[in-house]
Amino acid sequence: MVRVLETGGGDPGRIHAEGMAARVALEEARDSVASLLGARSRGVVFTSGATEAIAAATWGASERGGHQVVSAVEHSAVREAAARSGAVSIVAVDRLGHVDPDDVIAAIRPDTCAVHVQWGNHEVGTVQPVAEVVAACRERGVLVHTDAAQAAGHVPIAFDDIGADLCSVSGHKFGAPQGTGALLVRRGLRLRPLLMGGDQERARRAGMENVPALVGLGAAADALRAADSLEVEAVTARRLTDRVLAGVTGLDGVVAYGDPTNRVPHIVCLGVLDVEPQAVLLGLDRAGIAAHSGSACSSEALEPSPVLEAMGVDAQRSLRISVGWSTTDADIDAFLSALPAVLDDLRRLGRGPTVVL
Amino acid sequence: MVRVLETGGGDPGRIHAEGMAARVALEEARDSVASLLGARSRGVVFTSGATEAIAAATWGASERGGHQVVSAVEHSAVREAAARSGAVSIVAVDRLGHVDPDDVIAAIRPDTCAVHVQWGNHEVGTVQPVAEVVAACRERGVLVHTDAAQAAGHVPIAFDDIGADLCSVSGHKFGAPQGTGALLVRRGLRLRPLLMGGDQERARRAGMENVPALVGLGAAADALRAADSLEVEAVTARRLTDRVLAGVTGLDGVVAYGDPTNRVPHIVCLGVLDVEPQAVLLGLDRAGIAAHSGSACSSEALEPSPVLEAMGVDAQRSLRISVGWSTTDADIDAFLSALPAVLDDLRRLGRGPTVVL
Repeated sequence: MVRVLETGGGDPGRIHAEGMAARVALEEARDSVASLLGARSRGVVFTSGATEAIAAATWGASERGGHQVVSAVEHSAVREAAARSGAVSIVAVDRLGHVDPDDVIAAIRPDTCAVHVQWGNHEVGTVQPVAEVVAACRERGVLVHTDAAQAAGHVPIAFDDIGADLCSVSGHKFGAPQGTGALLVRRGLRLRPLLMGGDQERARRAGMENVPALVGLGAAADALRAADSLEVEAVTARRLTDRVLAGVTGLDGVVAYGDPTNRVPHIVCLGVLDVEPQAVLLGLDRAGIAAHSGSACSSEALEPSPVLEAMGVDAQRSLRISVGWSTTDADIDAFLSALPAVLDDLRRLGRGPTVVL
Repeated sequence: MVRVLETGGGDPGRIHAEGMAARVALEEARDSVASLLGARSRGVVFTSGATEAIAAATWGASERGGHQVVSAVEHSAVREAAARSGAVSIVAVDRLGHVDPDDVIAAIRPDTCAVHVQWGNHEVGTVQPVAEVVAACRERGVLVHTDAAQAAGHVPIAFDDIGADLCSVSGHKFGAPQGTGALLVRRGLRLRPLLMGGDQERARRAGMENVPALVGLGAAADALRAADSLEVEAVTARRLTDRVLAGVTGLDGVVAYGDPTNRVPHIVCLGVLDVEPQAVLLGLDRAGIAAHSGSACSSEALEPSPVLEAMGVDAQRSLRISVGWSTTDADIDAFLSALPAVLDDLRRLGRGPTVVL
């Protein structure tokens, strides 16, 4: 990335030497991302992130029908983009966050253009039965989009094999820089673009390609492909998050949400029953631990989590704990040591059930 | 940028230390961009580039009415985004590419939600009477969006003073990295967002902020603000492009398009009457000169230039010559020496009027 930035970044759409060099770098990155995700290179449309990929998938699909189906635990980027495009049916989930493929099928109408079912949940980690949903929708001629923003780079993804029509991916979730993502598009599928006015990305996404950052995305994909890195990281992440789940078992007022086993390996979600999560986050931050409350995509919104609401659990007080490639056992030790102390402090201060944030 | 990349890039939406550091860096960049463009910091919505900013402006405006007005020389990003949102009236331009504000006003209908008039043209450089259009539209309650992708960083822009409602900016056009841009929004104006699902950018643009690249955008803005750099660069760019225009005067089969004086300082457009522009570009590239044919945003499209068509000149055979902060007189010498030789070679090879690419 630094090398690309230092040379100023050619325009991959031009036929001069600088442009051709940029094009080569861009296409190498595309090959790397395609290999990581089991897709054809031509099926990879680079975007500024998963939010744009999701918006493009939803907008593109909506030309084919006025109704879309989403699971109740989809990210707000999916729910809101689908709602903009027409009518939406929301499919309920069980208490662990699973959607039932039969319920998805039952929600399909004659005017349904697309079904959205995420690969792994962004708050509780629960993995959805994407392959079963794909099989059922394919028979019915309905497009399937899977939001793999939380899953890509953390679990093996074989896009072409699973047969989904569209798959959204976020780069910064697996070590690539912010501002990178991709929409994977099934062979032969043509959708109207969200961003228009240029023939970049085979006329599927207009606008100057973010060459330096996408080179970083390709490098992150290469790193995960090398020597089973993804699989090794997944094993480690699973072990570390299993330690979190085991470590909080029996901790007063703390519960675990989501599927404890069938989940993306790097995310677990804890409920703190009698303390405001923002205060816990600040206490953890003072202990050097960066965590997040599962309530929203942004800290600015303090609304209840729609995911947890859909699961029928307390949607106001959750902590989303995630580990990355650099997380160590010592980090988990630190968390498991800090959390009870932070909770005890807050309860002693009376910041318990009587305080409403 | 390298420092931000090395530290891994916090999420500016989180309240832990890493997130707060990223937020500070992001808001400093926003202040810098706002200062460069004469806007309030709160009026700066960061995007992945001008194409996204334009799409967001057009999509947001279209909620207010089913008709938009565009000048005939707008970038395809504007024309196509407006066409997606409803009915469009295209306002003709004169032979130099100017739109007449009276013609813009005449095109306004009761259901017109927005008028699009670019600050400076992307192929011929002609500057439009944005202030006059703004004044006339303000009386009529119609939003004005100006595409300043080619102008920002090259001419002084005082967004708040000129009174436009929306202004789209591209970062890589003035030294920032690819994948950066901004939509400037007038105080008090609320538009529905194009990208949804998060409260980033004051709920005006969802998705993880591209912190490292936007830090680069802020740095480029700072560099242009320091010691009258923008004004000095503009003087130099004007002198260099004037040299191009003077140098090709009298050159057989070469004409200049666009307003020779009232233009952005760094762009001139030449018509080559009897030779295919792609061949000229390749010849120039061999001489170390990176130029572009004005025919489209991307090399992949070989259609006639809509801009040149609207101006009533040959839309098939043009060269877009632009200079940047690093361009020297020696570069102009090289171009003025190479161009006649390249044209002579091509004509000798018979690649003249008889060859259709």
